[in-house]
Amino acid sequence: MTSDTALDWLKTPLAAANEQMRQAALQHQAQLTKPPGALGRLEGLAVHLAALQHTLQPGAERVQISIFAADHGIAAENISAFPQSVTCEMIRNFAAGGAAINVLARALGAQLEIINLGTVHSTDLLTGVKHYHLGAGTANFMHTAAMSESQLAAALNAGRICAEQARANNMQLLIAGEMGIGNTTSATALACLLLHASPTQLAGAGSGLDSKGITHKISVIEQALALHYSHIHSPLEALRRVGGFEIAALAGAYIRGAQLGLPLLIDGFISTVAALAAEQIFAGSKNWFIYAHQSAEAGHAYVLKVLNAIPLLDLAMRLGEGSGAAVAVNLLRLACALHNEMATFAAARVSTKKQ
Amino acid sequence: MTSDTALDWLKTPLAAANEQMRQAALQHQAQLTKPPGALGRLEGLAVHLAALQHTLQPGAERVQISIFAADHGIAAENISAFPQSVTCEMIRNFAAGGAAINVLARALGAQLEIINLGTVHSTDLLTGVKHYHLGAGTANFMHTAAMSESQLAAALNAGRICAEQARANNMQLLIAGEMGIGNTTSATALACLLLHASPTQLAGAGSGLDSKGITHKISVIEQALALHYSHIHSPLEALRRVGGFEIAALAGAYIRGAQLGLPLLIDGFISTVAALAAEQIFAGSKNWFIYAHQSAEAGHAYVLKVLNAIPLLDLAMRLGEGSGAAVAVNLLRLACALHNEMATFAAARVSTKKQ
Repeated sequence: MTSDTALDWLKTPLAAANEQMRQAALQHQAQLTKPPGALGRLEGLAVHLAALQHTLQPGAERVQISIFAADHGIAAENISAFPQSVTCEMIRNFAAGGAAINVLARALGAQLEIINLGTVHSTDLLTGVKHYHLGAGTANFMHTAAMSESQLAAALNAGRICAEQARANNMQLLIAGEMGIGNTTSATALACLLLHASPTQLAGAGSGLDSKGITHKISVIEQALALHYSHIHSPLEALRRVGGFEIAALAGAYIRGAQLGLPLLIDGFISTVAALAAEQIFAGSKNWFIYAHQSAEAGHAYVLKVLNAIPLLDLAMRLGEGSGAAVAVNLLRLACALHNEMATFAAARVSTKKQ
Repeated sequence: MTSDTALDWLKTPLAAANEQMRQAALQHQAQLTKPPGALGRLEGLAVHLAALQHTLQPGAERVQISIFAADHGIAAENISAFPQSVTCEMIRNFAAGGAAINVLARALGAQLEIINLGTVHSTDLLTGVKHYHLGAGTANFMHTAAMSESQLAAALNAGRICAEQARANNMQLLIAGEMGIGNTTSATALACLLLHASPTQLAGAGSGLDSKGITHKISVIEQALALHYSHIHSPLEALRRVGGFEIAALAGAYIRGAQLGLPLLIDGFISTVAALAAEQIFAGSKNWFIYAHQSAEAGHAYVLKVLNAIPLLDLAMRLGEGSGAAVAVNLLRLACALHNEMATFAAARVSTKKQ
């Protein structure tokens, strides 16, 4: 697949929510046969989706799940509990239908696509995997920038294309998730640069480091930040220097989704850091983000707080692959079903609240 | 329908979870292609259901939702934001398919049954509603016991029959929920008696009282407790004196479900107080309870803490009707799908964690 490196589209205006529809949806909620507010956050979800989707009948039936995978040069620093080979092995598992996100996508009837942006080993012969060849993983950002300018642009464009296809396929919701051994280290370093935070505030166990492993991970990130800090003049440059192909693709998908008016359900730590990058690259993108779950990864709460986000679920998940977002899809679906199908007080002849 | 008032069945032993199956399910989870623990509480849910259902392939596809409705004499004390007529009006709404629980049951493909235990007005002509005629609501427990001995026994038996039918219909999960204007006042009084707590610690807005209304509700409960306190010699007597038909039916369903080995998904405040009563009537019943959600009703957190329960969802719902439990069903289904369908490290040839 040819890599597209033009970035003019990054300047396209964001879509606007429909505030009249939001008011109409709020008024509709007030007429449904339940005490006002008794469905809690499900009411707000339906109303918000009505505004984002410009319809009084919001929905989350048609869902695209796109998983971006890539390898990370930083894996050479022994910052993951799993060997780097697992990235490609999991891409094979995705292609064979055996991973968590495959099970969830089947259960939801969601469209699942797997996108390999660049791994150490080839997965070219796998059917059902889309390939970009941005490199054999990123460079090791302990020593140099993770990506070249053109690699960053190609990764952002891979995300753009994903959102455009979701829109073209008339999807009501897009989940863009990730897989890549080493990517919590990359996401942590990126969040530190974007938020002027310290790795001690953000670094966590990733796929399963012990406390000694986390200490080493912090040390690696600190050294990397010392190398890059003085060169950061923009969020895009932070993304290029310490991000990953898949993190950049997520940011691209999130920005493009916001431009196209496509609600985006954000997964866990890495996805939320990509969402933060998207918001810093194009302020207002986050108006299109719905935060699915609170991950057990240490830095997630920190980044969510910056984004003023209260996720829907808190199940101590920490898998990635868009899995937490997939688990939250049913909440959106039920919120919409309640909004669209419940009887009104008038139609059901139910008395309203005492005055 | 003839009321059954024998209570010998309350002494039937509880079913036991299968601890060997729990261990086998735990071992199976450890082999799935994800970092150990990365699916968070979904892993524990699947393992727990495997033990409760005595199978390595747990499931929550076949779900019965039984909504018990009744009126409350205490409604005469103006302790609800809605008029008492709403109980019958909502039963009509349930029968017509327009209430929240109807929408949720349809979306889940769950079996929904509506049971009127005794209301001020008749709903006898409604199709699709099962009727017990225990009285025109309970008596006003400000002045006398809410139920006679035979009413209490009949309500408990209505719950027993519900659980037995769920078992006979090969259900994998039972949600028993409730509707009844005034029933947060009844449940609050009951929890105060069962836990030796004060109404100021437990009373909340119910369907929508303001702070003045809550103060009045607390005063009503305090006066009622003063009347009944010295007569309470057992949890059944507490239930009889300040409970409701539907609360007693819930307790009966929960105990019988635990005897029959049927996992019970517990809804919000009123259901949890009924679950507390069930546990106090028959210690160990709670091993069969899964707590669906944290209600916005003030006393729920207090009662959950006593039960050492951490619910799955926290969406600020406070509707009753089993609605919070219904919303949590998909979490159980996805937990089981992941447990049953994910590939193992060996089968997918994915490397395990570094040693």
